[in-house]
Amino acid sequence: MPIVNHFIEIETKQGINIHNITLQIQELIESTSIKNGQALVFSRHTTTALAINEYEERLLQDVKVYLHKLAPESDRYLHNDLHLRENIPPDEPMNAHSHLMAMTLSTSEVIPIVDGKLALGTYQSVLFFELDGPRKRTIFCQISGES
Amino acid sequence: MPIVNHFIEIETKQGINIHNITLQIQELIESTSIKNGQALVFSRHTTTALAINEYEERLLQDVKVYLHKLAPESDRYLHNDLHLRENIPPDEPMNAHSHLMAMTLSTSEVIPIVDGKLALGTYQSVLFFELDGPRKRTIFCQISGES
Amino acid sequence: MPIVNHFIEIETKQGINIHNITLQIQELIESTSIKNGQALVFSRHTTTALAINEYEERLLQDVKVYLHKLAPESDRYLHNDLHLRENIPPDEPMNAHSHLMAMTLSTSEVIPIVDGKLALGTYQSVLFFELDGPRKRTIFCQISGES
Repeated sequence: MPIVNHFIEIETKQGINIHNITLQIQELIESTSIKNGQALVFSRHTTTALAINEYEERLLQDVKVYLHKLAPESDRYLHNDLHLRENIPPDEPMNAHSHLMAMTLSTSEVIPIVDGKLALGTYQSVLFFELDGPRKRTIFCQISGES
Repeated sequence: MPIVNHFIEIETKQGINIHNITLQIQELIESTSIKNGQALVFSRHTTTALAINEYEERLLQDVKVYLHKLAPESDRYLHNDLHLRENIPPDEPMNAHSHLMAMTLSTSEVIPIVDGKLALGTYQSVLFFELDGPRKRTIFCQISGES
Repeated sequence: MPIVNHFIEIETKQGINIHNITLQIQELIESTSIKNGQALVFSRHTTTALAINEYEERLLQDVKVYLHKLAPESDRYLHNDLHLRENIPPDEPMNAHSHLMAMTLSTSEVIPIVDGKLALGTYQSVLFFELDGPRKRTIFCQISGES
């Protein structure tokens, strides 16, 4: 049963921004011989996350408002007392709220592959959330299954 | 290593309602020869979700209150301005809150199978959340592993 | 393709406490011949959960505050009316808030394995959340893939 590993690389923008990576995963599947199996998608950062939902511009704005309401950037967080932490780089950001948002969303998603395609529902897209941009980010994809 | 795909179909009720699909997944496993492996459960809609927790009637009421507190239906959401969106069907619902609840819960869960059974803890059930019913819904199950 | 199952056992402390189980999973992988594949990590209780994020002492305090803000222990919950529930043991705790926190975090995480190692990002650790301690808890790990 073949296993194909791949990194998707994304340059993100300031603050929270949401990227639709469905097509990149589908193209990766099509570059393999795998017709039946799974796509494991894994967010490799502590201030990024995944969700599988609708890529609709106004909903994406609603999600940003929602995440900021759950974990306001302006709240007091111990993680943001940079002078009290050890071994941090000089450009360490004050991003506790981004970590909390990431834990509320997902780090790993597994999506079934049927007939060589992601078996997503009609309105589902695979969404990658930058929660503390701008940065260069990587998403890990592992395609496995049978030809 | 065999891979068995199956759709579970559910007719849901008005608003938020929670369905225990553990038995259906277990019966699917027993219909295969797989004794050791995984059950991938995947919610195929943008206003449904999964969680693995206790199926206790009063707790299910608490979860509904909790989800409504996090994402109140009465809040103002851009996604609900239907007249400002393109290509939407005439029966499009105002359900931004349902999408936000779905992203807070899970879309994919992977459950280990040991000795032909879901390796769940004593009080764990696989819960399917309808967040914008009533609708006909499908849940994808993929059983894989060794006999 | 080999599949290796293992239980990690943890004795937890009072209330919410967060355990870094990354090393235990990595050692389990190294005890197998698997070099390329997946680690499925599964929290087997309804008041424990998983997250993949930074194990930084001050951030862990922020996460506890965040979870208590989302689901305050002092709120009124129907699940806590123990006298109205059936077949509950005499030491049943009033822990509805712990269930809600668990559903907000994760029950299952799948982490890719590359070259015999968890393919985590620089600051990522696998975190196990006790949300209603103290208890003896078990986490299920399934390592699968190719040598």
